[in-house]
Amino acid sequence: MDFHARQKKIQGQLGGNRLDALLVTHLPNVRYLCGFTGSSAVMILTENRSFFFSDGRYITQAKEEVRKSRILIGRQAPLLSAADWLVANTGKAAKSKVPGLTIGIDGEHLTVSARTRLAKVLGHAFKLKESPPLVERARMLKDLEEITLLRAAVQMGASLFQGVLKTIKPGVRENEVGAELEYAARQAGAQQMSFATIIASGKRSALPHGVALEARIPARGFVVCDFGVILTGYCSDMTRTVHVGIPTKQARQVYELVRQAQQAAVDAVKPGISVSEVDEAARKLLSKHGLGRYFSHSTGHGVGLEIHEAPRIAAAQTDILRPGMVITIEPGAYIPQKWGVRIEDMVLVTETGCEVLTPTSKELITL
Amino acid sequence: MDFHARQKKIQGQLGGNRLDALLVTHLPNVRYLCGFTGSSAVMILTENRSFFFSDGRYITQAKEEVRKSRILIGRQAPLLSAADWLVANTGKAAKSKVPGLTIGIDGEHLTVSARTRLAKVLGHAFKLKESPPLVERARMLKDLEEITLLRAAVQMGASLFQGVLKTIKPGVRENEVGAELEYAARQAGAQQMSFATIIASGKRSALPHGVALEARIPARGFVVCDFGVILTGYCSDMTRTVHVGIPTKQARQVYELVRQAQQAAVDAVKPGISVSEVDEAARKLLSKHGLGRYFSHSTGHGVGLEIHEAPRIAAAQTDILRPGMVITIEPGAYIPQKWGVRIEDMVLVTETGCEVLTPTSKELITL
Repeated sequence: MDFHARQKKIQGQLGGNRLDALLVTHLPNVRYLCGFTGSSAVMILTENRSFFFSDGRYITQAKEEVRKSRILIGRQAPLLSAADWLVANTGKAAKSKVPGLTIGIDGEHLTVSARTRLAKVLGHAFKLKESPPLVERARMLKDLEEITLLRAAVQMGASLFQGVLKTIKPGVRENEVGAELEYAARQAGAQQMSFATIIASGKRSALPHGVALEARIPARGFVVCDFGVILTGYCSDMTRTVHVGIPTKQARQVYELVRQAQQAAVDAVKPGISVSEVDEAARKLLSKHGLGRYFSHSTGHGVGLEIHEAPRIAAAQTDILRPGMVITIEPGAYIPQKWGVRIEDMVLVTETGCEVLTPTSKELITL
Repeated sequence: MDFHARQKKIQGQLGGNRLDALLVTHLPNVRYLCGFTGSSAVMILTENRSFFFSDGRYITQAKEEVRKSRILIGRQAPLLSAADWLVANTGKAAKSKVPGLTIGIDGEHLTVSARTRLAKVLGHAFKLKESPPLVERARMLKDLEEITLLRAAVQMGASLFQGVLKTIKPGVRENEVGAELEYAARQAGAQQMSFATIIASGKRSALPHGVALEARIPARGFVVCDFGVILTGYCSDMTRTVHVGIPTKQARQVYELVRQAQQAAVDAVKPGISVSEVDEAARKLLSKHGLGRYFSHSTGHGVGLEIHEAPRIAAAQTDILRPGMVITIEPGAYIPQKWGVRIEDMVLVTETGCEVLTPTSKELITL
C-alpha cells in the first residue's frame, strides 16, 4: 500500500480546511494511513509530518506494521499520549494564552467525553475543530491494490455460497448453517466474518437483520443468507435469498420484483450519478408494484476496510458516484409476519459504468 | 430478566443527578434495559416513563423483544426520532426560550457529531448534560439471571479448550486452530465469538493482542490461546498459554511466575477492595522477579453483555469491588522478540471473597 501517498493527500487538505494538524482517532482510518491493525492507536498528521501513538501492548506490533509515521509508545491511552505530545512539542503555541493551533477532530467517531478529556489536556493553547471526514472521503475511492483485495474477498465470500446451499434443509437450525459457513470461511483463510452472519428463515426472513439463531428452517419458505468475510483486512458482503420447498405464486412474484429492483439499481450505477438516484431506481420499481412500503432500509453502502463505510446509497444522501468506489446494491421486501427477500451484490464503479463483483447467479434457487 | 426493576433503578437516580430524562444511546445499555438485541435503537427514560425508538428495519423484532418500554418506530435514525419526539411531546418546555428540560447524554458513547445533530433538533428549550454512567454502573452488579448466563458462557468457552489442545501441533497455522475452535463453538450453540480469537505462537506470543493469523506453530515455543463465546448475549473470556515441545528453564520460570501473579490477584479479590489493589497484587509479584516491565497491560476488566465493561482492573482506577461483579484476572509477561505468557480466568465477586468461574487447570501443559 502506498501509505506515503495516502498521508500526503490528507496533509495537502489541512491548509484548505484551516487545520494545523489532524487527529486521526478512528482505527480503520489509522490502518488506512499507516498499516497498523491493532486495537489502540491515534495518529497526528501535520502538513509535513506524521506521528503514530499506541500503548505498551503494541510496541512490537507497531514496529512491524506502521509505515511512514513516527512511532511513539506511551503509558496511557493513545489519545492522551497524543495530547501530551502536542502540548510538549508545539513550543510557543502551548505557552500562549490565545488559541494558537487548530487541531481537527473526527466528530463522527470521537466521543463527547474523549473530546472533553482531550480539551482538558490541551488547554487554551489549542482550538479543537470538527474536521470534514477527510480520511473517509479518501477511502471512498479505492486504489488498485484495494480493488484487488476487495475482489479476492468477494470471490472467497461467493465461493462459500455453494456450501450454504448444501446445509440448508428443513429442520436444520439457522445457526448450524451459520457455523458450517463460518468454518468453511476460516478454512479458506478468512480472518473473520465481516459481520454477524444472517441466516433468517421462514417468518424470520421478514427481519432484515435476523442473525442466525436456534430457529429451525421450516419445510417451506424463504431463507435470507447475508454474509461476508474479511480477507487481508478487506470486507465482502453478499445476500442471496433461496426458497425451501415449492414457492407460492406470490413468493415468486415478490422475488422477481426484488431481483428486477436490484438490477435497476445496478443499471443506474455510473460515474456522475448521485447515490440517491441509485436508491430511487430500486425504490421506484418496488413502489410501482405496491412493495415500496416493504422496502424498509436504504439500497446500499460503501465497503472496504469496514463493512459499512461511505458513501451511503440512500434517498437523502448527496454523494456522487466516482470511479473506484465499491458499494453494495441490496434492495429487499419484507412482509411482516410472513417472509422477506433481499438480493445483494458488491459493485465497482468504473470509468464508464460499473462492474458487478459478486459472481453468483440471482435466479431463484429452490431447495 | 427484570427489565422493570432495571429501569426503575436508573429512573430513581435521575432526580439526584438533576436530569429530567436520560437518553440511552449505547446499544448494550438499551439491551440491558429492555431486551432489544438489534443494531439501531435509542431509549428515553424519564422518572416515570420509558420510550424506545428504532427504525423500519426493526418493526417486527422490536415488538417481539422490547419489554417495559413504549415502542416508537421512526423513518430516520433513532437518535433523531427521539429528538423530534422530545420536541413534540414536552409542550411548554419546547416553546420556551430558556432551557427547560435537562437531558442526560452518555458522553462515553455519543459522538461529538451526534451531539451536535441532537442539539440542533432540540434547540434552546433543552439542555444537554453529560450523565454519569448510570447504566454501566448498574450493569457492573450482575443479578442472579445474569450470573447464571455468564456461568453457562464460561462453561461453554472452557469446554472448547480440550479441542484447542488437540489441534495445536507444529506446522499447523494459527488460524486453523482458530477455525476449529470457532466451529466447535458454533456447534455447541454459541451465537458468535466474543472477540477476534487470539492464537499467538512462538515469537508472536510476545504480542498481547496477536489475533490468529497465517503463521505456523513452531516446533518449540509458547502458544497463547485467548478466546471467548457469546451465549444468550453474555460473553466469556479465558486465556491459557501452552507450550509446544520441551520448554527452556527460563520459559518454565516465567510461566510459573505469571501463574503465581494470576493467583495473587485472584486471592486479592473480595468485596471492599479497590480494583487498583487487585492490579497491584499481580504487578508486585512480577516486579519482584524483574518481570514488571514485561507486564504491559492492566490486570483485567468486567465482562457481561460486553466483552470489556466496567470496572477496569488497573492501577489508576478507583472502583471498589462488590458482590455480583464479574471480572477477568489476566496478567501476562511478554519478552519482545522472544515469547509471552498470559493466564486469564473469569472471577465472580461473592459476599465473602470470590469464585473462579473458569474451571480449567492452570498447570503448564506441554504438547
